[in-house]
Amino acid sequence: MSALHFGTRTLPYGVVSPSGGRPRVGVAVDDVVLDLAHLFGPSSEFAAASLNPFMAAGPARWAEVRDAVRARVDQGVESGQAGVHAAGAVSVLMPFEVADFVDFFSGIEHATNAGRILRPDEEEPLKPNYRRLPVGYHGRAGTVVPSDVDVVRPAGQIRQGDEVIEAPTRRLDVEVELGYVVGVPSEHGRPVPSDRFHDHVFGVVLLLDWSARDIQAWEYQPLGPFLGKSFATSISSWVVPLDAVDGAWVDGPQQEPAVLDYLRVDEPRNPSIWLELELEGHVVSRPVAGSLYWSPAQQMAHMTRNGASLRTGDLYGTGTISSFEVEGQGSLLELSWGGSREFSLGGGAVRSFLEDGDRVVLRGWIGGDRSRPMGEIAARIRPAL
Amino acid sequence: MSALHFGTRTLPYGVVSPSGGRPRVGVAVDDVVLDLAHLFGPSSEFAAASLNPFMAAGPARWAEVRDAVRARVDQGVESGQAGVHAAGAVSVLMPFEVADFVDFFSGIEHATNAGRILRPDEEEPLKPNYRRLPVGYHGRAGTVVPSDVDVVRPAGQIRQGDEVIEAPTRRLDVEVELGYVVGVPSEHGRPVPSDRFHDHVFGVVLLLDWSARDIQAWEYQPLGPFLGKSFATSISSWVVPLDAVDGAWVDGPQQEPAVLDYLRVDEPRNPSIWLELELEGHVVSRPVAGSLYWSPAQQMAHMTRNGASLRTGDLYGTGTISSFEVEGQGSLLELSWGGSREFSLGGGAVRSFLEDGDRVVLRGWIGGDRSRPMGEIAARIRPAL
Repeated sequence: MSALHFGTRTLPYGVVSPSGGRPRVGVAVDDVVLDLAHLFGPSSEFAAASLNPFMAAGPARWAEVRDAVRARVDQGVESGQAGVHAAGAVSVLMPFEVADFVDFFSGIEHATNAGRILRPDEEEPLKPNYRRLPVGYHGRAGTVVPSDVDVVRPAGQIRQGDEVIEAPTRRLDVEVELGYVVGVPSEHGRPVPSDRFHDHVFGVVLLLDWSARDIQAWEYQPLGPFLGKSFATSISSWVVPLDAVDGAWVDGPQQEPAVLDYLRVDEPRNPSIWLELELEGHVVSRPVAGSLYWSPAQQMAHMTRNGASLRTGDLYGTGTISSFEVEGQGSLLELSWGGSREFSLGGGAVRSFLEDGDRVVLRGWIGGDRSRPMGEIAARIRPAL
Repeated sequence: MSALHFGTRTLPYGVVSPSGGRPRVGVAVDDVVLDLAHLFGPSSEFAAASLNPFMAAGPARWAEVRDAVRARVDQGVESGQAGVHAAGAVSVLMPFEVADFVDFFSGIEHATNAGRILRPDEEEPLKPNYRRLPVGYHGRAGTVVPSDVDVVRPAGQIRQGDEVIEAPTRRLDVEVELGYVVGVPSEHGRPVPSDRFHDHVFGVVLLLDWSARDIQAWEYQPLGPFLGKSFATSISSWVVPLDAVDGAWVDGPQQEPAVLDYLRVDEPRNPSIWLELELEGHVVSRPVAGSLYWSPAQQMAHMTRNGASLRTGDLYGTGTISSFEVEGQGSLLELSWGGSREFSLGGGAVRSFLEDGDRVVLRGWIGGDRSRPMGEIAARIRPAL
């Protein structure tokens, strides 16, 4: 495992396997991992290969465990102590079992940019429903992978003039998002109000939504994205509990027209999370999550308004976090304006979409300074088979 | 549990709980359930609350078990024998844990009818990609329910003239489909060729795809169906192994233009499965699965062409099975032609969409006669909360 650098304030949860040992839940503290199966004992919910049992336990247990972890950290944790692993001595695994994966489209700058790029003839880049509801769709849960798993360039059907061919994608893109992870399930048939957000949602991860734009463009009518997205979605390996975001919520953009009752939220809506997208060692964009049009509490309320239930391990992505300025655009589609221009990686290198061998890294921090790291996703593009 | 009437040829698998007993896998034979945890012993994969361990074991084990079950059935099974439960003495549970759920759109008659109803101004009802690839999208795995679970009328956002309101759906529909269930997983990054269909897919179920047409119409641009579908999907509680469909495969409609290499199949493509949709005791339609444009082997090959992996418990629906003649139309959208006409339930009752209290039943048979029943789905519509 590479260096963690989480400091002592984030205290995120992950699943690790010490060399030769069974998987268990740990907390990343500075550059070591605190072993919760050791701290709470081998019969606790932490002696497990996923966070799901702990996440299902609910807010009272989450608070109790965080307090205990903080108390332990205050005593000082160092590699070599019982129940403390050096970062380099463990494998970091997929942190939870994904139940359903939903991807929203709540970055209004991204939706506007994408509308202008993909439908240049239409005066209004946003569809009429955009400011009324958080548009979203279901993605493939089975291909969500943690950091450090390579992404194989997908092949598929691509339209080329009047021909339709079978070929590796030529427009491999990636979208910068956050993902929210559900802990406590809900009853099927009963909507979950927006003010129950903290009763159900356990934490947040970084998310990279890999996209094959040419496959997507040909397949998506009339039922939406499918193979253009389903080949892989990457998340950060350490789940940041919502407690760690305390005090860093901000108002999003004003919502006009006023939202329907079930979408009302009184408190600041969005986490102030600052992101950095790096391509081949060069930072190409710095998107900021505070500007998202729809918040995670609104997304949860919308997703269940029809009675759909939540399950432990449900993951929902915000949609691409972007900006109108090129410095904060969260996809290569936008940075290259639909492939019509190249952007610089420094040293003379340029890109419009991803090339084989490219290394992509997404990092995040809670709040305006860098005192609360959210972790990172690193992934390399492997050539098509 | 209601009567089964499966006869002795289908021999489908389900999960049952004898009164007070732990769940285990059983086979329905006539009107009794053969207890496989008894036949194969308490340490077998059948002493489980789902079919997943058995389905993951693969074709050799599936054949071995089916041979053993046939041999046992040939000896005569009767309620009262050790390891044989009367149908009325067990609860029938959800048969497997759904991993990912994909819904295709492979009924060309349905796609054509829906295009004519929803886009009457366009001359061509099918999108240009329709005959090139099996259009599909991901649905919500967490709200797939077995037979005999009621469906609560969903509420959501509905456009009404210039207004957008929050209300229970007024256009509650249901679509008749089959669902294929994956047993053997595949490697992430590696497509699964169409000729490996029988190595991965374990069986087939009946499927009812509940749909709220007004919610769907407002939400679906540009990313496809979401809350208009995600409130519930019903499947039959007994999974029919593909072995039971042997000898009942038929050629589908000719595919023109010729399909790309990865979608080629040499053998007859579609199961000859005959369906009957009943509403309030009245048969309203008799769709036939043999006419589907895209086959389950083609759907599997397409779904994995981009390297997306299969997991044990993946479920994929065919899309609505329909016809141009009203007698075989597999959705109320078609039977009422977009709500523009009412159809008869006999005795003076009429419908255009589903009403609260309505009881919907879907039954199926393999082959042209009724000697191999596929089982049934029964569900009642409950009023919105």
